[in-house]
Amino acid sequence: MTQNDPDKLKRKLFEFAKVFPFFELIGFELVDFGPTWAKTRIAFRPELCNPNGVMHGGVIATLIDASITQAMLMTDEYQQVRDTRGSMTTVDLRVRYLRPLTAGYAQCEARIPHLGRRIGHASAVVTSDEGKEIALGDSMIILTLGEAK
Amino acid sequence: MTQNDPDKLKRKLFEFAKVFPFFELIGFELVDFGPTWAKTRIAFRPELCNPNGVMHGGVIATLIDASITQAMLMTDEYQQVRDTRGSMTTVDLRVRYLRPLTAGYAQCEARIPHLGRRIGHASAVVTSDEGKEIALGDSMIILTLGEAK
Amino acid sequence: MTQNDPDKLKRKLFEFAKVFPFFELIGFELVDFGPTWAKTRIAFRPELCNPNGVMHGGVIATLIDASITQAMLMTDEYQQVRDTRGSMTTVDLRVRYLRPLTAGYAQCEARIPHLGRRIGHASAVVTSDEGKEIALGDSMIILTLGEAK
Amino acid sequence: MTQNDPDKLKRKLFEFAKVFPFFELIGFELVDFGPTWAKTRIAFRPELCNPNGVMHGGVIATLIDASITQAMLMTDEYQQVRDTRGSMTTVDLRVRYLRPLTAGYAQCEARIPHLGRRIGHASAVVTSDEGKEIALGDSMIILTLGEAK
Repeated sequence: MTQNDPDKLKRKLFEFAKVFPFFELIGFELVDFGPTWAKTRIAFRPELCNPNGVMHGGVIATLIDASITQAMLMTDEYQQVRDTRGSMTTVDLRVRYLRPLTAGYAQCEARIPHLGRRIGHASAVVTSDEGKEIALGDSMIILTLGEAK
Repeated sequence: MTQNDPDKLKRKLFEFAKVFPFFELIGFELVDFGPTWAKTRIAFRPELCNPNGVMHGGVIATLIDASITQAMLMTDEYQQVRDTRGSMTTVDLRVRYLRPLTAGYAQCEARIPHLGRRIGHASAVVTSDEGKEIALGDSMIILTLGEAK
Repeated sequence: MTQNDPDKLKRKLFEFAKVFPFFELIGFELVDFGPTWAKTRIAFRPELCNPNGVMHGGVIATLIDASITQAMLMTDEYQQVRDTRGSMTTVDLRVRYLRPLTAGYAQCEARIPHLGRRIGHASAVVTSDEGKEIALGDSMIILTLGEAK
Repeated sequence: MTQNDPDKLKRKLFEFAKVFPFFELIGFELVDFGPTWAKTRIAFRPELCNPNGVMHGGVIATLIDASITQAMLMTDEYQQVRDTRGSMTTVDLRVRYLRPLTAGYAQCEARIPHLGRRIGHASAVVTSDEGKEIALGDSMIILTLGEAK
């Protein structure tokens, strides 16, 4: 299965993201992605805000977490996990909030600059429409191969 | 305003939380709270899950972030910020995911064990209905007094 | 080897710590320890300080890191790693600095409240002689079994 | 004092680092630095190692912490703190360990990409002589102006 057609896999994952209930609830949109990277966004709307009109920190954390997962899905390392029915686990998530977001999109670029067979170290940057940095995130992911062949 | 009746303030904050749009969207419930602590929860439902039926890490992060903020709202330190029209900013959030949550409530206890006039160091534990630890979180909060008297 | 006499192992590890060059350099002392916990300390001395007479943050970080490792050494999980010539890797370290230390000992209590076969989540608290909290730390440890029998 | 000659300040700070006791103890060397950045290193030597011959995580953490502080010293923001006898406090430090270092220098590049009047968010990368990434670090710094004029 690992020798899967990457274009087909990508289309399938795109379709999946469009109708995935949690993504719909929160407004998470997949802009583009490939092995070890993803560009995503969430549109600002009052329902996602604190009382002071700033996008909630939990929404920013969700954007980062979901984007990092998306950046894993087309990697060979993850394909192996899936082919063997193993598991991929996010063991930690860190967000540093730099500026409030009060309009437009929270845009996220996630990368996995260090990916081994067992551990991935991921990073993400969230920016506003004006290109200002809103938040920085990082996450550690543990891959466990399963027993299926 | 700081000499406000605490019971009245608490009732007001409870009412606020019940109708706050983001809390409704995500299902965040305030169980109880006081100065420097809060007990909260989010009910498991498929819409908040990953494809594998586990509550999304972003939801857990949101639960922790919102609970820590709630634990600040009745502190004298925050009342001073509000009275002077200053600001309270969460500058970072960290979540360590220990176990998947697949049913019941994600229950959160947030505390602010170290609170100065300018910085608060907060901690949170998320547990399942069986009392298993699901996640640990921490956060740093910066308080800035305003100029209003 | 796992069925080792624990008292003998503990004595051996105590002896080791007393003459271990890095511990001597930095002044790290093992007070007591067992499976999943360690009490340790570093005596304040000018050579370990910032120009302002406060113990350097790197010394506090070292105290936490070394204490967490020590808390692993008598666990069954680590014994298995050692018996199979596997590896134990600290993948991250976080320190929150709460107060400056300007005299006496930096005393550390490290615990590993969540230890599985592959991942350990550790926590540590550093206090002054007066019992004031100086710093909080946490760390994630990955265990990999080796191939030796 | 803020209008100080930057070259003179830099020479002074270089001289200071050469004879600073903690830096001598640990082998911390300042390679070059300016406002918001610093290049530094620590030479590998057995005394700084774990029993397995890998540079101790506490040494890497110290390298990152000291480098980030150094990157602050020539900023205008820090000069203001010094001129008013205020304080600069590192409130947290995070290190992600990517690879073991077993020879040569642990080389560090620290930057402060986000520096306001009150908070600085700093990042650091530690590499080996071959340019491999050994560790990533980040830190938050709080600046407090003093009352001196």
